[in-house]
Amino acid sequence: MAISGKLSEEKVFKDPVHRYIHVRDKLIWDLIGTKEFQRLRRIRQLGTTYLVFHGAEHSRFNHSLGVYEIVRRIVDDVFKGRPEWNDDDRLLSLCAALLHDLGHGPFSHSFEKVFHMDHEVFTRQILTGDTEVNAVLRQMGDDFPKKVAEVIGKTYENKQVVSLISSQIDADRMDYLQRDAYFTGVSYGHFDMERILRVMRPREDQVVIKQSGMHAVEDYIMSRYQMYWQVYFHPVTRSAEVILTKILHRAKQLHKDYYTFRQDPVHFYSIFEEEVTTEDYLKLDESVVMYYFQQWQEEADPILSDLCRRFMNRNLFQYAEFNPAATVEMKKLMELTALFKKAGIDPDYYLVVDSSSDLPYDFYRPGEEEERLPIHLQLPNGDLRELSRQSEIVDAISGKRRTDHKLYFPLDLIKDMSSKRTAKKRIMELLNV
Amino acid sequence: MAISGKLSEEKVFKDPVHRYIHVRDKLIWDLIGTKEFQRLRRIRQLGTTYLVFHGAEHSRFNHSLGVYEIVRRIVDDVFKGRPEWNDDDRLLSLCAALLHDLGHGPFSHSFEKVFHMDHEVFTRQILTGDTEVNAVLRQMGDDFPKKVAEVIGKTYENKQVVSLISSQIDADRMDYLQRDAYFTGVSYGHFDMERILRVMRPREDQVVIKQSGMHAVEDYIMSRYQMYWQVYFHPVTRSAEVILTKILHRAKQLHKDYYTFRQDPVHFYSIFEEEVTTEDYLKLDESVVMYYFQQWQEEADPILSDLCRRFMNRNLFQYAEFNPAATVEMKKLMELTALFKKAGIDPDYYLVVDSSSDLPYDFYRPGEEEERLPIHLQLPNGDLRELSRQSEIVDAISGKRRTDHKLYFPLDLIKDMSSKRTAKKRIMELLNV
Amino acid sequence: MAISGKLSEEKVFKDPVHRYIHVRDKLIWDLIGTKEFQRLRRIRQLGTTYLVFHGAEHSRFNHSLGVYEIVRRIVDDVFKGRPEWNDDDRLLSLCAALLHDLGHGPFSHSFEKVFHMDHEVFTRQILTGDTEVNAVLRQMGDDFPKKVAEVIGKTYENKQVVSLISSQIDADRMDYLQRDAYFTGVSYGHFDMERILRVMRPREDQVVIKQSGMHAVEDYIMSRYQMYWQVYFHPVTRSAEVILTKILHRAKQLHKDYYTFRQDPVHFYSIFEEEVTTEDYLKLDESVVMYYFQQWQEEADPILSDLCRRFMNRNLFQYAEFNPAATVEMKKLMELTALFKKAGIDPDYYLVVDSSSDLPYDFYRPGEEEERLPIHLQLPNGDLRELSRQSEIVDAISGKRRTDHKLYFPLDLIKDMSSKRTAKKRIMELLNV
Amino acid sequence: MAISGKLSEEKVFKDPVHRYIHVRDKLIWDLIGTKEFQRLRRIRQLGTTYLVFHGAEHSRFNHSLGVYEIVRRIVDDVFKGRPEWNDDDRLLSLCAALLHDLGHGPFSHSFEKVFHMDHEVFTRQILTGDTEVNAVLRQMGDDFPKKVAEVIGKTYENKQVVSLISSQIDADRMDYLQRDAYFTGVSYGHFDMERILRVMRPREDQVVIKQSGMHAVEDYIMSRYQMYWQVYFHPVTRSAEVILTKILHRAKQLHKDYYTFRQDPVHFYSIFEEEVTTEDYLKLDESVVMYYFQQWQEEADPILSDLCRRFMNRNLFQYAEFNPAATVEMKKLMELTALFKKAGIDPDYYLVVDSSSDLPYDFYRPGEEEERLPIHLQLPNGDLRELSRQSEIVDAISGKRRTDHKLYFPLDLIKDMSSKRTAKKRIMELLNV
Repeated sequence: MAISGKLSEEKVFKDPVHRYIHVRDKLIWDLIGTKEFQRLRRIRQLGTTYLVFHGAEHSRFNHSLGVYEIVRRIVDDVFKGRPEWNDDDRLLSLCAALLHDLGHGPFSHSFEKVFHMDHEVFTRQILTGDTEVNAVLRQMGDDFPKKVAEVIGKTYENKQVVSLISSQIDADRMDYLQRDAYFTGVSYGHFDMERILRVMRPREDQVVIKQSGMHAVEDYIMSRYQMYWQVYFHPVTRSAEVILTKILHRAKQLHKDYYTFRQDPVHFYSIFEEEVTTEDYLKLDESVVMYYFQQWQEEADPILSDLCRRFMNRNLFQYAEFNPAATVEMKKLMELTALFKKAGIDPDYYLVVDSSSDLPYDFYRPGEEEERLPIHLQLPNGDLRELSRQSEIVDAISGKRRTDHKLYFPLDLIKDMSSKRTAKKRIMELLNV
Repeated sequence: MAISGKLSEEKVFKDPVHRYIHVRDKLIWDLIGTKEFQRLRRIRQLGTTYLVFHGAEHSRFNHSLGVYEIVRRIVDDVFKGRPEWNDDDRLLSLCAALLHDLGHGPFSHSFEKVFHMDHEVFTRQILTGDTEVNAVLRQMGDDFPKKVAEVIGKTYENKQVVSLISSQIDADRMDYLQRDAYFTGVSYGHFDMERILRVMRPREDQVVIKQSGMHAVEDYIMSRYQMYWQVYFHPVTRSAEVILTKILHRAKQLHKDYYTFRQDPVHFYSIFEEEVTTEDYLKLDESVVMYYFQQWQEEADPILSDLCRRFMNRNLFQYAEFNPAATVEMKKLMELTALFKKAGIDPDYYLVVDSSSDLPYDFYRPGEEEERLPIHLQLPNGDLRELSRQSEIVDAISGKRRTDHKLYFPLDLIKDMSSKRTAKKRIMELLNV
Repeated sequence: MAISGKLSEEKVFKDPVHRYIHVRDKLIWDLIGTKEFQRLRRIRQLGTTYLVFHGAEHSRFNHSLGVYEIVRRIVDDVFKGRPEWNDDDRLLSLCAALLHDLGHGPFSHSFEKVFHMDHEVFTRQILTGDTEVNAVLRQMGDDFPKKVAEVIGKTYENKQVVSLISSQIDADRMDYLQRDAYFTGVSYGHFDMERILRVMRPREDQVVIKQSGMHAVEDYIMSRYQMYWQVYFHPVTRSAEVILTKILHRAKQLHKDYYTFRQDPVHFYSIFEEEVTTEDYLKLDESVVMYYFQQWQEEADPILSDLCRRFMNRNLFQYAEFNPAATVEMKKLMELTALFKKAGIDPDYYLVVDSSSDLPYDFYRPGEEEERLPIHLQLPNGDLRELSRQSEIVDAISGKRRTDHKLYFPLDLIKDMSSKRTAKKRIMELLNV
Repeated sequence: MAISGKLSEEKVFKDPVHRYIHVRDKLIWDLIGTKEFQRLRRIRQLGTTYLVFHGAEHSRFNHSLGVYEIVRRIVDDVFKGRPEWNDDDRLLSLCAALLHDLGHGPFSHSFEKVFHMDHEVFTRQILTGDTEVNAVLRQMGDDFPKKVAEVIGKTYENKQVVSLISSQIDADRMDYLQRDAYFTGVSYGHFDMERILRVMRPREDQVVIKQSGMHAVEDYIMSRYQMYWQVYFHPVTRSAEVILTKILHRAKQLHKDYYTFRQDPVHFYSIFEEEVTTEDYLKLDESVVMYYFQQWQEEADPILSDLCRRFMNRNLFQYAEFNPAATVEMKKLMELTALFKKAGIDPDYYLVVDSSSDLPYDFYRPGEEEERLPIHLQLPNGDLRELSRQSEIVDAISGKRRTDHKLYFPLDLIKDMSSKRTAKKRIMELLNV
């Protein structure tokens, strides 16, 4: 069948992380050319992070190509020819790798939280609905789009394929750690991926790592740990995220209250109503969101306009440490809430507790939320051993969830409370600023 | 004066190209925080290049910080204390470096061409008009904004300062070559900047290079040459640029013809009329432009909607070599124009000659357009010598303008001309596709 | 005084790790030119490691310049002007950094073990004896060489200076981790040194790290951990080390037994007798050692010639895991020893247990061997906190000594035991080969 | 046949330049293990360059593995399966790549000049003589060693194989440019090798480059140009080379004059007599040479001992520009010669003209010395075009031999001429020091 055929000449993309991304299959080339995939160019990989690490302006398009390339190298250079690997799943693996983030929207994290959306649902809908991507995939067979969706949804029967895309050491993570490190410029995020790829082995219902690669895997786990706390959970990034979330909250509330927007949020109607169609969703990208935020700087509602101005001009909230488990701190928060209200600063929008939490690596705990299969090392004698039982370093951090809470607030507004001197003084005391 | 003072603690930005960007002056910190400077985050450094080199998604904000950092290193680490250098111009140099691109808008090149705008004029207006940037600068004295504008406009009396920002080896070029190479991932664009900075010397009315750094400068010139032809003038980037330009042309024309847009181009009114105020201009960024392009995909006008769909979904024009100096080729073009018209494909929008041209290095030719002072080497005995007289390699390419012409056309539309078989055949013959 | 003066023009060395090494002080320039310092070019930084990581051919000369450069950056760019830092100790710090390895000989580790030498003693003797280095140093004052020796010997009164050269995060370690990673090509060994340098602070009797740099320090500790187990204690490197040690043992024994060497080991006499003068010692470098090993390949003594051939031609010993704490393994070793003897393979030279052990990081345990001061973080409020109390990751590995034992043997000789089939079979069984 | 078989498990070497070097063929693995190949560890790739660029301590062993790896990637990843390529020549190509420098001795350049030796002759002798390398090669057939020698000697019938090892863009040059840049730390020497490899094509009797790779090739040519003048012909490196050459001259002369050496130069006898056997030659490595130089520092002959002390302790000659084509300069040289003689400084050893010359790229000039085939680009239509006809930059430097002459002398000795004040003054005047 022509569609599953090879391109007459291999296409390459210059990629700063993997040097070159190689495309030999017409199917992959056609998928990249669909408008749903091109849309990922207009969605940043790291959302608001660019407001802290100015280099982090790269898109999910970028990352998706990278994940594809990693899987391509694994299946073509490492797995090919091994009896445990079924090469019939090659193209399926490549497609799932390329398209795994297809359902992401702009600033996914905040939108999902405020509007109860789920990018995985949209990924499935785009794959199986009336889209260019679906049309291209169907050329491989009518059930091919569904299969791709199953791989991404982790329900596909060949768990080796699932593992390549979603496990504790998958192509997704390997690409984003390196890519995000590259674009932010931080020195973490580097590990010897070439080594890891060379020692990956298909094995029954998973992908395992030969023991000789253990140290490279340790390094990868440490990179992940550092990237989470240095970049992804950076407190100032979270401040931008808090403001963004509050903008969405405010707009939703105003819509509910029949507020008349100067810039009518046409693109947001179905989102506010939480009845988004795939078509609506695909029209939403960061340009559109930023366009509205820019317009909303001029809205009559003082909260919406203030928050939008803050976001556009990077005038973010300050933060203080906060421990929700301590009664004394919860009391403080209640007092602050009261003081904010009295001062006319709506605490629903201007006094925000934000929490970040990560599990650097976990062995298997069935039934837990977000469970991911552990990493297994294959010993020289063929036995498997779970990573944290072999590596002291990984054992040391394994299963230890680290959580960080912060309280965000607009220091400038507080400083401007000139008419309410006592309240201002008390607030600043409580916030220790 | 407090404003000229130092920050209580140095601020640093993590930068992937220069590792860290150091800010010690409150003035610089405040300038970065202005909304006019933050706006540069929403304007890509390389316009449409990201459609070819997917990594090239970095903004002018990024680059502006980089130019600032290079100038800071020169004045603080190399020039400071040298009798030829007037350290009173330190802050002025830093401000000019940081703000030199302030007047750039989205896809500047195309907008300037179609609407006869000039980003240098806007830079001056933003510096001296009623803006946050101006308010910050004025704290250094009422004429300080004007001085910054003069440096950027190359009219400032201390030509050493001007040279730092605009010469054949200035901080602007040194940053963008490295930065664009980093983000695109190409292997060109590298040269030993640290070496060059160390051998720069202030000297009467220019900045010269000690002869011992000649080879690093040669390498820089070669990097520039390669970046121009490999990245900046890449024929596919130019295809995207051609489409973008044609979108703007079409929208302008429609506006002139009283066409009723479904998505009313409010933000474009004053631009179409070529009467843009600074305020209007500052509202224009790439999100806004992309928002309109996205909307215009649904316009009734078939040309505008087609071109917008092409741009958004990266369905670009193909190209053929073209030599405007050859009579036979001009004849071909005329025949193609006629055939396109007959086929109902408007050649004004779908048959486009595009030319790129660069002068890799030039010695001084007074009176020439875009003249830039040549690079002077300072010999051990103190004499100056123009670079191309000392370097064989630079001499070899000095003053040689290289120009490349291409003819762009939509191969898909031509292939679809099924009802006009003869015309189609002839067109494809002429275009050699 | 002229000698303490600055060079008329700064000298730079191109360095692959730190890019440039800057020398502004005539004293440093003169020290580099002494024959004792130039001798470090003939001593490899990593001894026999180049037999496993072929890139590791770099010398101690290389590393010494690197340590100097790091200390220079700390004192000139970070400490200078801080009230807690006494700038009078600047040159002393630079000299100690440059000269800290001056007393190292060829393959120090093995030589010291076999001949009970101590490179620290030789460092002191070279600094204070009749040498070119001493003559240069004395120009700073008669007690200056002694002061340099005190810094290197960790007894100097200003503990800040001592900390720069010898602590758990000193310039020595920071250079060698990066340098050894660079030359071997492994991906470990990288950490953000620039960040660490920027947050180092002189503080009473130590050098502390501002808390904001904690993650960079974590990364450094992890790099160190990985470098130890991946490079420094690589089992094949240790095989080469075992053979080298056995060559020295054998030569010493032969000398004691009045064996007549074809190549008379003139350079080794005083070493064999353990009565080495500084002058003798300085004549010993790797060329000399390698020269003898090459000659000794032709010696009549079969053990010496065999071991030398193995070393020169990289025909190393194989290894097996070995646990000296397990009675069953000790029994095995005894049986193997007996079998080797019976087979005519001298177990003293051909059956060797080698152990490596490292403590990745340690808090303070007074009285312990090789105690090093712990790393202290300086909190924003000025308090100090020991690193492992602040960092989960460091806490996890803190104070945990990891040890690895291996049993080395010549597989080729065992395979050649054709006449003794039963013994051979049993040996191979016991060694699991 | 077993010997041509694959290793049961691929072996890898960690390489800082190519990341990993992959060995799948037992033949290659066995060749690497021979003592003749291991000997290359004791011969530095860049001779005396480490005295200027201290990182340049890497050996020919290092480089040989690199050339092998490049050829392996070309034949296995690019050429394999192409009809123009005969895969029967695969192993031959790999062997020739690995062994192309086998006949190099210590400081080859100087030894060859002084003793009229030729490393290519020794390579052939080692390949075809009674050596371990020969024994391994012969397992592929009795004429296999000869074939390898023919490839290296450029006489092998399949010129594609010859081109891989010796042409203007061969694996040898591509490795050493990158490797020498890496170890010296200079920023030149980088080019996009991955790109070049991907566009190499076997074609009748040569290897050509697809036109799309032209810019990468331009970059390679420029790298080569810069490396020659910045590193290989660095005037201070040449000073070390001059001294080394003069040591050899002196020793040879003393031997001829029946001088009695304290350290009898046993290893040099056959060299002095210019009757070196392969066996003698293989015993000569840099350790041996350095051992003698170290001993000769104590010789009675003042010239030999002085030159050896200079070399060991890096007390090199100074230099002045010199133009042998100018009569006035030749007169100066004659006057200096006379003055040196009078002052008792033997001009044969202490006043040396050294010339370096390079041709950055050349089109074909039949009959010229050292002719190398030009680089051909393959146009999209299949035509070939010589590089300099397609690239302006290459054209600019093509065929232009650049030569540099310097006059070397010991400034310290001249300064010490206290008793001959007039002569000293005149010498310093003539040398402009």
